[in-house]
Amino acid sequence: MTTASPNETDSHFAVLLISCPDQKGLVASITEFIYSNNGNIIHLDQHVDVQHKIFFMRIAWDLEDFRIPADAIGEVFGAIATRFNMAWSLQLSDFVPRMAVFVSSQLHCLYDLLSRYQSQEWRIEIPLIISNHRAAEQIAHQFHIDFHYLPVTRDNKPEQEARQLELLRAYQVDFIVLARYMQILSGDFVAHYPNRIINIHHSFLPAFAGAKPYHSAYDRGVKIIGATSHYVTAELDNGPIIEQDVVRVSHKDAVKDLIRKGKDLEKIVLARAIWNHIQHKILIYNNKTVIFE
Amino acid sequence: MTTASPNETDSHFAVLLISCPDQKGLVASITEFIYSNNGNIIHLDQHVDVQHKIFFMRIAWDLEDFRIPADAIGEVFGAIATRFNMAWSLQLSDFVPRMAVFVSSQLHCLYDLLSRYQSQEWRIEIPLIISNHRAAEQIAHQFHIDFHYLPVTRDNKPEQEARQLELLRAYQVDFIVLARYMQILSGDFVAHYPNRIINIHHSFLPAFAGAKPYHSAYDRGVKIIGATSHYVTAELDNGPIIEQDVVRVSHKDAVKDLIRKGKDLEKIVLARAIWNHIQHKILIYNNKTVIFE
Amino acid sequence: MTTASPNETDSHFAVLLISCPDQKGLVASITEFIYSNNGNIIHLDQHVDVQHKIFFMRIAWDLEDFRIPADAIGEVFGAIATRFNMAWSLQLSDFVPRMAVFVSSQLHCLYDLLSRYQSQEWRIEIPLIISNHRAAEQIAHQFHIDFHYLPVTRDNKPEQEARQLELLRAYQVDFIVLARYMQILSGDFVAHYPNRIINIHHSFLPAFAGAKPYHSAYDRGVKIIGATSHYVTAELDNGPIIEQDVVRVSHKDAVKDLIRKGKDLEKIVLARAIWNHIQHKILIYNNKTVIFE
Amino acid sequence: MTTASPNETDSHFAVLLISCPDQKGLVASITEFIYSNNGNIIHLDQHVDVQHKIFFMRIAWDLEDFRIPADAIGEVFGAIATRFNMAWSLQLSDFVPRMAVFVSSQLHCLYDLLSRYQSQEWRIEIPLIISNHRAAEQIAHQFHIDFHYLPVTRDNKPEQEARQLELLRAYQVDFIVLARYMQILSGDFVAHYPNRIINIHHSFLPAFAGAKPYHSAYDRGVKIIGATSHYVTAELDNGPIIEQDVVRVSHKDAVKDLIRKGKDLEKIVLARAIWNHIQHKILIYNNKTVIFE
Repeated sequence: MTTASPNETDSHFAVLLISCPDQKGLVASITEFIYSNNGNIIHLDQHVDVQHKIFFMRIAWDLEDFRIPADAIGEVFGAIATRFNMAWSLQLSDFVPRMAVFVSSQLHCLYDLLSRYQSQEWRIEIPLIISNHRAAEQIAHQFHIDFHYLPVTRDNKPEQEARQLELLRAYQVDFIVLARYMQILSGDFVAHYPNRIINIHHSFLPAFAGAKPYHSAYDRGVKIIGATSHYVTAELDNGPIIEQDVVRVSHKDAVKDLIRKGKDLEKIVLARAIWNHIQHKILIYNNKTVIFE
Repeated sequence: MTTASPNETDSHFAVLLISCPDQKGLVASITEFIYSNNGNIIHLDQHVDVQHKIFFMRIAWDLEDFRIPADAIGEVFGAIATRFNMAWSLQLSDFVPRMAVFVSSQLHCLYDLLSRYQSQEWRIEIPLIISNHRAAEQIAHQFHIDFHYLPVTRDNKPEQEARQLELLRAYQVDFIVLARYMQILSGDFVAHYPNRIINIHHSFLPAFAGAKPYHSAYDRGVKIIGATSHYVTAELDNGPIIEQDVVRVSHKDAVKDLIRKGKDLEKIVLARAIWNHIQHKILIYNNKTVIFE
Repeated sequence: MTTASPNETDSHFAVLLISCPDQKGLVASITEFIYSNNGNIIHLDQHVDVQHKIFFMRIAWDLEDFRIPADAIGEVFGAIATRFNMAWSLQLSDFVPRMAVFVSSQLHCLYDLLSRYQSQEWRIEIPLIISNHRAAEQIAHQFHIDFHYLPVTRDNKPEQEARQLELLRAYQVDFIVLARYMQILSGDFVAHYPNRIINIHHSFLPAFAGAKPYHSAYDRGVKIIGATSHYVTAELDNGPIIEQDVVRVSHKDAVKDLIRKGKDLEKIVLARAIWNHIQHKILIYNNKTVIFE
Repeated sequence: MTTASPNETDSHFAVLLISCPDQKGLVASITEFIYSNNGNIIHLDQHVDVQHKIFFMRIAWDLEDFRIPADAIGEVFGAIATRFNMAWSLQLSDFVPRMAVFVSSQLHCLYDLLSRYQSQEWRIEIPLIISNHRAAEQIAHQFHIDFHYLPVTRDNKPEQEARQLELLRAYQVDFIVLARYMQILSGDFVAHYPNRIINIHHSFLPAFAGAKPYHSAYDRGVKIIGATSHYVTAELDNGPIIEQDVVRVSHKDAVKDLIRKGKDLEKIVLARAIWNHIQHKILIYNNKTVIFE
């Protein structure tokens, strides 16, 4: 079900994500590297955290007439990277990332993801769904995606996580989306996919972290509720925030209304986070994200 | 500087705010009271908290042909109220509430309040401004409002609060607005004006309560910041929320940008809260508000 | 796939929607009707258009101990209605409306509707999908819903509309949702389902009515785009607006980005409109809606 | 009342705004120019309109150790500009623009501007206010700003515009803000200040251009209203849009409520537009804006 890229251009291009200590000459050196090799810059975004003196850049360029072969770019750019002490990653537009979905019994985000997938809105593969409930099994079949039922209890958690990791390797998964997966992943599990596990939390973090945020929001009497998508870290609901959005509520809304309104938020906030991830628009530092929109 | 009411109607009308245990016949009895006395209902809003079985109502009616004189309405209605065990308050449209402003050195909310006041956007009187700094003194003079400078230290706080209470009584103040007043009021002070002190907090509560919320929001890397207006209770930043609003931020925004964007939010959120308060649109229960918008 | 109602209460209840010339005694008479027959009001919302002196009300009450049998309520209430010259409609919570979906080749709204349907988020039946393209056929099968392919040309439009009406009757359809159906319905067709055809238009109406609104929005350089759900009338994109929402865009967004961002808006705005419709929360007058939220 | 810049940095810096036909080597050449002269880039934003193949850039750099004196930068950069056929403008952080305010009888935006000015939120001078009414005269005095009363009729418009232009020259005004100025400026007048007259229109353009937009919005029954700030061109309400924002309304809101809610929008949208203008963040092409936020 792989599709032609709906974005940037239909041509081949490369994306570099770079961060390093700020200093003079960075932009000139990077753009000169591309220009002198006959590349045409499609997008360039840069940002400097003035407080911490860190430089961030996302640069995308057309590979059409680029003089360096795609598989040699990393090696050539490495020399510049070393000179400026850069952390960097290179992505080629041909690459189609493989995404696993973890889900429990709330299925609205899963439906939304699979609809976008089947509509070819995203240039990805979804080879498998893993769940601790059977609720999603029918949908997985409906959308022709492998489903693995791995119920988790306090006792079997280590074995089940081992089984999950085995599956992720077998299916060559690049990143994981927790589409309302109601289990806390161990720090050990998370360490296998650093900045590659995307969660959707049903509150406006840092308010109402943890369980039952809609109930807490109702009890506090807030006038606005939110949803937050973030990368998963070892600390619960505390990873780098990718995207948030909110919707207005009132005293007329019971908890079930917050849940109903919140579901629509969750779907959209998670989808936007995934979009930014697969477009290589996200850099992470200090437990925060730079999103090159 | 009192002005004709810009709202509801230019005629005389009464507003009843009612809460009581839910039971059959409440609406029928209240509306029959008004109808049988030849009143014309202008607005009626009611709400039932199904979980706690509490009934809430705001009802406004024209006094033009109403058979009960304005000053006797309370007495007559009292009989119905007793029958249904109601908590209630009656406001007449002729009443012009007197509002005191407490402010420190951040003046954007004060400017906004005084501009609305001088423009006669609100039907209120602002007889005095109290501050622990001299920063607002010139503005007070500019807008022809009495200014009282009462610096607060750990040692003199009880005396200064006593002096404040004295001034509030002398100026016959009905409610207080803390327009970025950077002092915590004592529980004793608050008890003199229950549900009559409105604060603006520069975060999306309950996230980032307390000091320096914009710095905390920046450090956490949130993608949206907010402001919250609430009634002041003895517990800091934990009173019933009246209004909240938010604005989107990004990694490009430094703390000073959050402050700049937040100021505009604070002005509007506080102004909306005051509007709802002076229009008698707010009922309070369980540390939450019912806003009859 | 009919399900227990997720809303209001799980008990049986009735909803009355009423509009009439404003006059004294309306609320008292209506609520007395319910109270005297031992009904318990669950929700009551009323509104007066002061300019046109029109009264609107939505009232929902529990039928548990109500003394009038459900099938006789209309007759009994009719006497009150006549006295006050009311237009009114009565809905019982047991009723499950049947919704037809019309769609063309943009399928995101269809996916969203069917996902909500299969998740039992809405208490409705969707017996059929009608389309002028074959694009939706596979999805219809996937969700086990009858699909009818009725291609429309300038020449065959009258016959195809006749065929559509025949299907709608055969499937006993109560209301129609145009989920990005790219054909203009004739005034004759619309007259068969007055205020029962819900459209989603991909702009913030009245801006950019008609074809290619995202292209027009791009050309005008707006900073915000929107979506509008409205009842279909004989005049294109000019029916009563049910719901609107917006999302921020910038110069960085090409037309394809407006389309991408707009799709998410369209899904949510249409879903909210359907929700309000099936909850009997909408009254229509002067080509506008009163939404009792 | 000129103040130290609250933004970017307190140091001296330069800002270049550039647009030209897109081609390879642009970014490399511009950044090399700065780097080779020992400048440190503070901000860099670029954008390419792929459809029209136009390149846009905003680049800000520190002048601290820059080898070219500030008053010679233009000349040196001119050589690069000519090579790439650039349209460009250079701004130095020391420059304090002078802003004239035109206003009629709605004063909320004026209050907001003057409050920000007096609070030194903006690094500008406001030497004069021009009005066709006397309503703003007191406020002008209150804020110690010259006020010129120039009533406009159909007959005297050319003479009054001539007088206005004379005043603008005399006060050395750099740009004009129409803070709800209810007169249409002639094309001739506008031609004196191309892209330097900022208007606030009280609707979500292009919906409801022209007079009485709140009344039109009410009549159409929209669920959201907006405000739009744009540069003034010869065609009414059709200039390049700088900023827009919206607020939700409902059937409960009468026209006066739309006006009340809209006023707060207008203040904020206009203020944001002015902020972007004085920060040199705006490029204009094809009657649209590129905002480098």
